[in-house]
Amino acid sequence: MSDNRLIYLPLGGAGEIGMNCYVYGYGKPGEERLIVVDIGVTFPDMDTTPGVDLIIPDITWLKENRHRIEAVLITHAHEDHVGAVGHTFEQLGAPIYARAFTSNIARHKLAEYGVEGKAVRTVSAWPETVTLGPFTVGFLPISHSIPESSGLVIDSPAGRVIHTGDFKLDRTPLVGEAWDPDLWAEVSKDGVKALICDSTNVFSRHAGRSEAIVGPAVEKLVAEAKSMVVATTFASNVARVKTLAEAGDRAGRSICLLGRAMRRMIEAAVETGVLKGFPKVIGPEDVTSIPRENVMLLVTGSQGERRAASAQLARGKYNGIELQEGDLFLFSSKTIPGNERDVIRIMNQLSEKGVDIVDDGMGDYHVSGHANRPDLETVHDVVQPQVVVPMHGEHRHLREHARLAAAKGRKGVLAVNGMMVELSGNEPKVVEYIETGRTYLDGSVQIGALDGIVRDRIRMALNGHVIVTVILDEDDQPLGEPWCETMGLPETGRSHAPLVDVLEEDLSQFMGRAGDKTLTDDDKLEEGLRRVARQSAMNEIGKKPEVTVVVSRLS
Amino acid sequence: MSDNRLIYLPLGGAGEIGMNCYVYGYGKPGEERLIVVDIGVTFPDMDTTPGVDLIIPDITWLKENRHRIEAVLITHAHEDHVGAVGHTFEQLGAPIYARAFTSNIARHKLAEYGVEGKAVRTVSAWPETVTLGPFTVGFLPISHSIPESSGLVIDSPAGRVIHTGDFKLDRTPLVGEAWDPDLWAEVSKDGVKALICDSTNVFSRHAGRSEAIVGPAVEKLVAEAKSMVVATTFASNVARVKTLAEAGDRAGRSICLLGRAMRRMIEAAVETGVLKGFPKVIGPEDVTSIPRENVMLLVTGSQGERRAASAQLARGKYNGIELQEGDLFLFSSKTIPGNERDVIRIMNQLSEKGVDIVDDGMGDYHVSGHANRPDLETVHDVVQPQVVVPMHGEHRHLREHARLAAAKGRKGVLAVNGMMVELSGNEPKVVEYIETGRTYLDGSVQIGALDGIVRDRIRMALNGHVIVTVILDEDDQPLGEPWCETMGLPETGRSHAPLVDVLEEDLSQFMGRAGDKTLTDDDKLEEGLRRVARQSAMNEIGKKPEVTVVVSRLS
Repeated sequence: MSDNRLIYLPLGGAGEIGMNCYVYGYGKPGEERLIVVDIGVTFPDMDTTPGVDLIIPDITWLKENRHRIEAVLITHAHEDHVGAVGHTFEQLGAPIYARAFTSNIARHKLAEYGVEGKAVRTVSAWPETVTLGPFTVGFLPISHSIPESSGLVIDSPAGRVIHTGDFKLDRTPLVGEAWDPDLWAEVSKDGVKALICDSTNVFSRHAGRSEAIVGPAVEKLVAEAKSMVVATTFASNVARVKTLAEAGDRAGRSICLLGRAMRRMIEAAVETGVLKGFPKVIGPEDVTSIPRENVMLLVTGSQGERRAASAQLARGKYNGIELQEGDLFLFSSKTIPGNERDVIRIMNQLSEKGVDIVDDGMGDYHVSGHANRPDLETVHDVVQPQVVVPMHGEHRHLREHARLAAAKGRKGVLAVNGMMVELSGNEPKVVEYIETGRTYLDGSVQIGALDGIVRDRIRMALNGHVIVTVILDEDDQPLGEPWCETMGLPETGRSHAPLVDVLEEDLSQFMGRAGDKTLTDDDKLEEGLRRVARQSAMNEIGKKPEVTVVVSRLS
Repeated sequence: MSDNRLIYLPLGGAGEIGMNCYVYGYGKPGEERLIVVDIGVTFPDMDTTPGVDLIIPDITWLKENRHRIEAVLITHAHEDHVGAVGHTFEQLGAPIYARAFTSNIARHKLAEYGVEGKAVRTVSAWPETVTLGPFTVGFLPISHSIPESSGLVIDSPAGRVIHTGDFKLDRTPLVGEAWDPDLWAEVSKDGVKALICDSTNVFSRHAGRSEAIVGPAVEKLVAEAKSMVVATTFASNVARVKTLAEAGDRAGRSICLLGRAMRRMIEAAVETGVLKGFPKVIGPEDVTSIPRENVMLLVTGSQGERRAASAQLARGKYNGIELQEGDLFLFSSKTIPGNERDVIRIMNQLSEKGVDIVDDGMGDYHVSGHANRPDLETVHDVVQPQVVVPMHGEHRHLREHARLAAAKGRKGVLAVNGMMVELSGNEPKVVEYIETGRTYLDGSVQIGALDGIVRDRIRMALNGHVIVTVILDEDDQPLGEPWCETMGLPETGRSHAPLVDVLEEDLSQFMGRAGDKTLTDDDKLEEGLRRVARQSAMNEIGKKPEVTVVVSRLS
């Protein structure tokens, strides 16, 4: 047995926030039996991934080792943990384990890919466990912003490892189980080999605040509002949606949910019994028949997403509802870095409508779902692991978290995506580097981040695109002149003549000069035409466009 | 005289942060003599302006009225106030007035366009004034983060108007004149018709803090650092560059400036005598010969700009200098919304090098250069204007600022870009709407924001680009099959056949079915081919690309 080992391998989430995917293995090196913890998504942006619909982890390594995978386990139902189960199920072919609410969400995702729901197996919380090859795993309740969030207690012959999942330390979390230090201490009392731990909030110096503080502040705000109130938050933040709905209800308002994601999430939570006492909601069609001051809308789009309810309400009507002067719009959310411009755009559109905006500038209307620095120290102290392995965070978060552990005399291991760490030896050590990355869902196709497709899109966006067409006759001689089409480029430049005319003139001269060696060689001809087109554009408009050359031979 | 009027017309900056450009006029309606206050730039982003180099106000209205322009006045030398003087000088043909330091910067910008320096006329501070047609204007010193920032005292037969420019209330500003309430009260004592007032920080509830608080904090940080220290801030924040340099100097370190913009700005400030006692600097070539713990680099790129010194140091060597484990990197700056991802990228690259990062998370290492909400109230109280016209801010800032004025019983006027407001009547009123917008500097060409050029780039980035080529012979019959090139699209989709083959097959079928009516009509043919290509791509890869059709006729 001594040559068996326990390994940890992050494939997503270690070096970024979002797109979580972690692998544990136990067995002989290279033959370990594997369990996968979470397969989440991250979201594209115009800067780096224009046109892409969704980003999932590159699971090439998992596919190559699919015969070794015992199961996929999902800690909780946030998109960055469960979002890619549908896209990857056929490729991995492993059963999915989760608690009831998470299972419900996962089943919906699989259904979109025509996969039957029985692929998802519902597990009850610890002390129930499930045996998966050499592993025994239990779902250990912990507070977060969505029902049934769980850490994982992962036992193998090499000892116990605890994977926290996303969490905060909330004793009054409104939905989901409260943080129970006694339970976590009990589970840890016989020694924990490694704590693999959420890192996103390591730079937040104060202890995290409970979801329970948000309700009274929102209730006061809503009660004082004179007209319609709209509040937005992440649809998947079920705790917050409940907080907002209850605050609105207590303030005597009818609640209306707008946005498909929000309605679906609340339905799933009610269906699975994890959300009780949610106020009665009205449909959008009923909103206009109620006085504005008696309505509260809960809407999707807290991050400024252009198609979500918030953005549509800011632009004009949505589901027949239109905001107006004196309405109040509450962002009960934090803006994720990179989304600021989109959120600000909505705020200004609302301002133009005369809608009053309240955001979380003062910290009254939002609390984070993640453990802050002192909370992380608390968990380290409760679990007392031999090793802390920070996960879910950018490089700077993981590094800071490892240092935080080290400051208390614990071993902190900085492992980013692709680093396979052996946890079973006396000292954790990196034993292998696995090629990892991102896969883009683009329309109905999965493309690799390094395929060059998105790079070409970015280049066209930055430089514009020129298409050069030439026809060569049966004798490889030019038939007529080359001609150009442009897209994304000014029509005229320095000379005030049409840009295409200028380009075509220079290309004609090139064709006139070109000898048979060039004219008979597609590569040479294309390269020459491309070079001329780029230089000609540079002279005329001061930038070098992307150039596609179409050589058409009648021969 | 009674039919003369005083007008205010924002062309940039009122409805956005940046790109400031305001016009005042006095005279008969439609014949007012004009002065222009500031002509600044704003910066492009991938989301809305890919490939664009710089954004300036659309000055069509000013060009149409250039015979009426007396002068352009620049309040201070920040890019969003002075940045477009070079790009617009020939089109406006008006002399530029500014104080000495600002003039120095403006002359450099004109020189890039081959315009002689005498186009810029240097004015001393109030009580000196300059007469410009019906206007008499004085530059009234006020504190900001750059030397010689000024409000403008604008007198006309209709009375006195004060335009604040950008400002903060700092009695110890380190560079530039201190806020002098007595001076501002003195200037205002005979009545001020309107205060046109900076609005950017109206949502900041606490009084602004002095530049003087930053130095001691930085000095402590630098003194405790064990290895090299790098600090970044806006190059144009001359006050901060001085604060940082002095703190480093006092901590016993040699100062090295990296980045062309920073060196140029400091040179201009020294040249014009507004920056005194700046510590001696060393060149980058001397850095490596000094122990790391005795060096402090001041570098450009606080917003994560990819070509600036910060980004280059984060990626690798810059000017022969390479950061290493244990160095300290200080962001003495605020991240402008929209730049978060770029800044975070640098932070993580530095983290990978083992460099410790300190940012302004706790507010110790940065103070704003703008007046916060209580400071705005102070200025209102000192100036006691009949009307407050908020400028320099997004819609939400202007609206909030107008409300702030109204809350104290003053008239607040919400005027966004393009609204011409008459200030000379009993009540300010909007008298005209002028078409305004943005002009893009794109390579060497100026293009209009609505020309569709950038829209096409964005579409190519989101959807990819297909080029369809068909050749028709002398009888308008297809010569060979249509063929396709693609850019920014996956090579294969649903059918696993090459995407171009699938497209070409469908396009061929279309050509086979097409009758003479289509084949002889370029528009019909192009429309048909485009539609087929888009639908074929949709079936195959789940997205509809941009399609350029090239029809080539041998006839």
